[in-house]
Amino acid sequence: MSDTTHAVIMAGGAGTRFWPASRRLRPKQLLPLAGDEALLRQAVSRVLPLCGSKRVWIATGAHLADATLAALPELGREQLLVEPAARNTAPCIAWAAHVVARTEPDAVVMALPSDHHIADLSGYRATLEAAVASARRGVITTIGIKPSHPETGYGYIEAAPTGEQVWRARRFVEKPDRARAEEFLAAGTFFWNAGMFFFRAKDMVAAVAEHLPELARGLCELDDAARRGGEAEALASIFPKLPSVSIDVGVMERMPELAMVPGDFGWNDLGSWLTVSELAAKDPASNSAPASAVLVKSSGNHVTDLRSGGGKRVIALCGVRDLVVVETDDALLIVHRDEAQAVREVVEALVGRGDRDLT
Amino acid sequence: MSDTTHAVIMAGGAGTRFWPASRRLRPKQLLPLAGDEALLRQAVSRVLPLCGSKRVWIATGAHLADATLAALPELGREQLLVEPAARNTAPCIAWAAHVVARTEPDAVVMALPSDHHIADLSGYRATLEAAVASARRGVITTIGIKPSHPETGYGYIEAAPTGEQVWRARRFVEKPDRARAEEFLAAGTFFWNAGMFFFRAKDMVAAVAEHLPELARGLCELDDAARRGGEAEALASIFPKLPSVSIDVGVMERMPELAMVPGDFGWNDLGSWLTVSELAAKDPASNSAPASAVLVKSSGNHVTDLRSGGGKRVIALCGVRDLVVVETDDALLIVHRDEAQAVREVVEALVGRGDRDLT
Repeated sequence: MSDTTHAVIMAGGAGTRFWPASRRLRPKQLLPLAGDEALLRQAVSRVLPLCGSKRVWIATGAHLADATLAALPELGREQLLVEPAARNTAPCIAWAAHVVARTEPDAVVMALPSDHHIADLSGYRATLEAAVASARRGVITTIGIKPSHPETGYGYIEAAPTGEQVWRARRFVEKPDRARAEEFLAAGTFFWNAGMFFFRAKDMVAAVAEHLPELARGLCELDDAARRGGEAEALASIFPKLPSVSIDVGVMERMPELAMVPGDFGWNDLGSWLTVSELAAKDPASNSAPASAVLVKSSGNHVTDLRSGGGKRVIALCGVRDLVVVETDDALLIVHRDEAQAVREVVEALVGRGDRDLT
Repeated sequence: MSDTTHAVIMAGGAGTRFWPASRRLRPKQLLPLAGDEALLRQAVSRVLPLCGSKRVWIATGAHLADATLAALPELGREQLLVEPAARNTAPCIAWAAHVVARTEPDAVVMALPSDHHIADLSGYRATLEAAVASARRGVITTIGIKPSHPETGYGYIEAAPTGEQVWRARRFVEKPDRARAEEFLAAGTFFWNAGMFFFRAKDMVAAVAEHLPELARGLCELDDAARRGGEAEALASIFPKLPSVSIDVGVMERMPELAMVPGDFGWNDLGSWLTVSELAAKDPASNSAPASAVLVKSSGNHVTDLRSGGGKRVIALCGVRDLVVVETDDALLIVHRDEAQAVREVVEALVGRGDRDLT
C-alpha cells in the first residue's frame, strides 16, 4: 500500500478582477499579487515539503501551459494536466484522481487552489498534514477556514467537533446573507470553504463513479486511451463534453461521510484588488505605493506600477482616498476600493468593444 | 498724434498648478487647456483684429523664448520682451510702456494676461474697444469682470457707474472672505480684477515716474542704452534689480483717476484643473474623458491623456467620482477636484527631492 502524497494545483482561473495586471494569458495565479513571487509559484513551493516536486500536478488551460512551466522550472511538461476546455472543478479533480490511480491508487491527492495567500506557512502545513492523514484513512477530507468576520462572499461548511483535530463535515452552505453570516460566526461550527480537498485517488474514483457516472465514464475512456498511449487525442474529444460541475456540488455534498480539518493559517483568497490592498504594507496614512510615488493629502490608497522599461515616471496622488491604482504598459486602472468587484465590468466593456488585446 | 494700439501679452507664468501638463519649460500659457490651441495662441489671435501682428509684444522669460515663438509664428523675435528675471507685473508693463513710448508715445497699450479663457469673443472685443477708447482719452483704464458668484479667490475692483459704458474705478480690494464676497456680489459695484490694463504709453511712463521712481530710473537707463544700441546688455544688469511689485499695488491703486469698463464675456482664469474640468464637454454622467477611456460606475471625472506615441493604451475608471486624471509620458496625476489647488504641493515635493526633470 502506497503512502505517497500528490498535489494537484488548480491553475486554470481567468481572474478578470485583477485587470489590468491580469490578462487572458497572464491570469491571477501568475501574478505576484502578495509577495515577490507569482501566487502559483508560492502555492507549489508551499506543498513541496509534503509531496516532492515529482508528485505535483498542475491543472490549467492549453493557452497557459508555457507560462505555467516558466513559473515552475522544476516541473516537467508531463506534470501539466492541460484541460482542453474549462469544465469547472469536478472534471479537473476527478481526472487528476484517475491519473494518479493508474499507478498509485492508494496515494493521497491534495487538490488545492493556486491563487490564494497563506500568511502562516507552518500552520498551513500542519493542517494539510492532518487532512492528508485523514484522507489516508479512507475518508474524503476538506479544510474549513476559521472565519474571522461575517463574510457574505464565501460558501461555508458546517461541521461537528469530534474532540479530535479532524471534525465531521455536515453540509456545504451557499453564500449567506449578512444576518446568517453573523449567526454562522457566533455558532463556531461554520467554516469558510476554501476549495481544498484531500482523498485517496481510488476513493475519489469511486465517489465519482457513484455520484457523477457520466463523468466517470468519460474518465474511464481516458484511462483506456492512456493505456494504449493515446490520451492526448482522446482528451481533446472527451474532455470538452464532460459535465461542467463543481466538485462541491457534484461530489462533496453527496458524500455520506466527509471529514473537515479546521484551518487558521492567515488564509486570504485575494478575491479582488481590495483584498490585495489590505495585505500590502502601509505607510502611516494607510497608503501602499512605490517609493517613487508622490502622495499629497491622500490616504488609504494602493498603487501598483507594473510598467516595464526605465526612465523617470512618477505617479502622484493629491487629495484622494481609498483608491486602487494599477498601471501597466498599455492600461491604467483607477478603482475605488469599495468597487473592486466591478473591475470585471471594465473587462466586459473592453471585450464588448473588441479590445481583446487589452484583456 | 498716433491712434495705433499695441498689445502686451504677459506670458511669463509658471503654472505649477497644471502639473504634470505644465512644466518649467511648458507652462500653462503654452498648453491647450481649453480648446485645441495653446492659451497664448488664443490670447494673441483674440487681439490681432485690434492691433495687428506687428504691434503685439510678448513678455516672457528667456527659457520660454523659443517655445513662445514656435507657438506664434507670425511674430518676430524682436517682438519678445524677454525678462532676465521674473519681477512681477509692474516692471514688465512699465518696460513695455517705455519701449512703445520710444516711437509712439501716444499709442494705446493693452496689457493682457496670456492664460485666461474667453467664451464670448465678440463681447470681449467690444469691451476691449471701449477700454482702448477710454485710454486714448488719457485715462488709465482697466476691465472689471462682472462676478457670477461670490468668489473668494480673486481680487475685486470697486467702481462707480457713470451712466456711460466706462465706469470710474474707486479702489482695488484684496481677496475677500465669503461674507464680504457675498456683499460684493449683492452690491453690483464690485468686479473681478482680471489683470487687464489699458493706457497711452506716455501716461504709463508718467505714472511710473510719479509712483515708482526707482523703477522709472531703471527703465530710463534702458531707454538710453537702447538709443545707443545696447539694450540687451543693459537689460541683463538692470532688470533683475528693478523693484518686484505688481502693477495693481505699485501704480493702479495710487492713481487719482482710473477708469473701468465692466466686462461680461465668459471670462475664466483657468486657475486650476478644477476650472479646466468645468469648461470641458461632459457626457451624461458629467465625465469628460477620451473616447478610448472605459468608465464604469463613475461620474464627475475629468481625464486628460497627453501621452505621445501610438499603440493601444486605455484608461479605465471604476467606481470613482470627481477626480481629475492627467497622464503624460513621464507622469500620472490623480487629484480630487476639490484639491486641485494642492497640485502645487506635488511639484514642491518633486523639487524637494531633486526630481527637477519632472517639474
